[in-house]
Amino acid sequence: MSEPFFKLMKGGKDTARGGRIVTAHGVVHTPIFMPVGTLGPVKTMSPDEMENLGAEIILNNTYHLYLRPGVEIIEGGGGLHEFTGWRKPILTDSGGFQFFSLEALNKVRGDGIEFQSHIDGSRHFFSPQDVVDIQVTFGSDIMMPLDVCLPAPAEQNKAREAGELTIEWLAGSIKRFNEKTSPEKQKLFGIVQGSIYPELRREMALKLTELDLPGYSIGGLAVGEEKELMWEMISVVNECLPEDKPRYLMGVGTPADLIRAIALGVDMFDCVMPTRNARNGTVFTHDGRIVLKGSAYSGDYKPIENDCGCYACSNFSRAYIRHLLNVNEILGLRLTSIHNLYFYISLIKSIRSAIDENRFESFMKEFLTRFEAEE
Amino acid sequence: MSEPFFKLMKGGKDTARGGRIVTAHGVVHTPIFMPVGTLGPVKTMSPDEMENLGAEIILNNTYHLYLRPGVEIIEGGGGLHEFTGWRKPILTDSGGFQFFSLEALNKVRGDGIEFQSHIDGSRHFFSPQDVVDIQVTFGSDIMMPLDVCLPAPAEQNKAREAGELTIEWLAGSIKRFNEKTSPEKQKLFGIVQGSIYPELRREMALKLTELDLPGYSIGGLAVGEEKELMWEMISVVNECLPEDKPRYLMGVGTPADLIRAIALGVDMFDCVMPTRNARNGTVFTHDGRIVLKGSAYSGDYKPIENDCGCYACSNFSRAYIRHLLNVNEILGLRLTSIHNLYFYISLIKSIRSAIDENRFESFMKEFLTRFEAEE
Repeated sequence: MSEPFFKLMKGGKDTARGGRIVTAHGVVHTPIFMPVGTLGPVKTMSPDEMENLGAEIILNNTYHLYLRPGVEIIEGGGGLHEFTGWRKPILTDSGGFQFFSLEALNKVRGDGIEFQSHIDGSRHFFSPQDVVDIQVTFGSDIMMPLDVCLPAPAEQNKAREAGELTIEWLAGSIKRFNEKTSPEKQKLFGIVQGSIYPELRREMALKLTELDLPGYSIGGLAVGEEKELMWEMISVVNECLPEDKPRYLMGVGTPADLIRAIALGVDMFDCVMPTRNARNGTVFTHDGRIVLKGSAYSGDYKPIENDCGCYACSNFSRAYIRHLLNVNEILGLRLTSIHNLYFYISLIKSIRSAIDENRFESFMKEFLTRFEAEE
Repeated sequence: MSEPFFKLMKGGKDTARGGRIVTAHGVVHTPIFMPVGTLGPVKTMSPDEMENLGAEIILNNTYHLYLRPGVEIIEGGGGLHEFTGWRKPILTDSGGFQFFSLEALNKVRGDGIEFQSHIDGSRHFFSPQDVVDIQVTFGSDIMMPLDVCLPAPAEQNKAREAGELTIEWLAGSIKRFNEKTSPEKQKLFGIVQGSIYPELRREMALKLTELDLPGYSIGGLAVGEEKELMWEMISVVNECLPEDKPRYLMGVGTPADLIRAIALGVDMFDCVMPTRNARNGTVFTHDGRIVLKGSAYSGDYKPIENDCGCYACSNFSRAYIRHLLNVNEILGLRLTSIHNLYFYISLIKSIRSAIDENRFESFMKEFLTRFEAEE
């Protein structure tokens, strides 16, 4: 018998958990942070560098890759793994979040989403079935179904409509998935929507649970709501979801967010924060963020962070990296990206060890005390 | 007794030559191509990547580094090697060429050059002595003296004036060099100017030869003159220069230029061409250039060049690299830069082997026939 997709090794329904995901392209240890490669590469990074950093899975974006280079070009290139040179697991999102963040350009219909390209204004349509088809062609290890994501605050009746449509679409997605691919090759998650309404979230989570999917995403959070509400929604949802399936909190977040969500039982994360901050010259340290472009660092010959083992910290000073950022040298963006990704990936590894060794609570407390001291 | 700075191993005064340069930071085999790191890094590249490509020496730019981050910041960082993380030999130019290419912003005086920063318009002055001082602080292995570079066509009397001032300044540069540093640590070359006038070039070359410098640069070429004139000037100058000193042709050029200049006895080259072309999406192959952004490559799944051993060609298709360039992913610029630098560095290695094995003429013929077939 083949290995199960997910195996929970440590922890339970609503505690910090340690687990293991097995995909056709390799093993992923949870909790996991998935760096984002919107258009293929994690920005500025080569696949080799990602592997050296210890990344186990990355996220690619269906909407963006559909527009450029287009599904046919990726198909001709043998799918995403072959085309992009990243041979480890890939999770693709469905475009639902892009339709939310580029709201003006789209229209939700009963059977899918009409949208205009943010590049050239051309008109397109995605049905839930289309989105599965694309991800089958891409060869994603884990795919997301098309969902309806709303900004916060969303009115309760709108949130209910969106949630119900999301579940209706999911049925179509599952059907198409079963026609076009197989669970040995790929996995389809369900996405729990429900905005900031605990009852609605609970209802959605329970309905999805009935579908017995290989994993569940928590969507529609970190979209403008109060953080306390986000924690509440995560708690409500995780209480309802089955213990033995991975939970993926979409688009979250800061290092502190990750650790707090892990405490509530989340297993998977993706976020552009480490790479986007890097390109703005902001780097993470255990003592909080540093805006490296500041003149305070012009003659600072220390590494970004003492005792950090990344390539940037092992070889270059803050002063040099600041200079590079200042004169728009690409190496500057590469070094801050390497450091921030290393920071996230190392943090998640440390969290896994702490969970494994039954000292997550104290690890979390120590990390947050130091990380948030200056914020 | 310590090793000589330059040892000619093969060839003579005006033939393809093989040699060896020994600096405080390592050995350089000639002929050599020196990639350009104007502001520190060779654009898009890390020092590790440069070393993996087999680069033996890079060029940094005095004028640009003087303006940003400034001499004090580099001094505080322990000099260029320590500050930039490139531990192998560094050659720095003097700024003379920048004063030529940013002509409107400068004024040549008897005692140096007044100039305005191209960044913020601030006013500065470089004497020949200042330029030596800066390069001593930088810790360059090979430094250039301040010279007067003219655009082509330059009138003969202007060219003579410029050449004479260059030689006068050189005397001041040598004096300051001997006061501030030593030949064990650094080397100061002389620069042969003289525009497109053979007699003037000859006169300058002979005057410089009398100064018995460790090496000689051929400046003021590839600045707009006919290529035939460039070859003539190189021949005239190399005939006059001592056989046992390295000759450095500044700012040249295409792969075909390199091989033709090597045939005339040139040992050293620098040029932004491989990296600048890369950032425009143009890559070199043995069959000429390819403009990768062209739609012809959108579904071309071959590597940039078959049998190329670089990281880009070993892992990615033209179609993927084109996509990356198309959507402004930095990895695209990195991959074209890696390929082009690999192309130049491999070419120069092949040329060294051909010289060593007494088959340079046939190598050159074969290379040019194929490389220029489509141009």
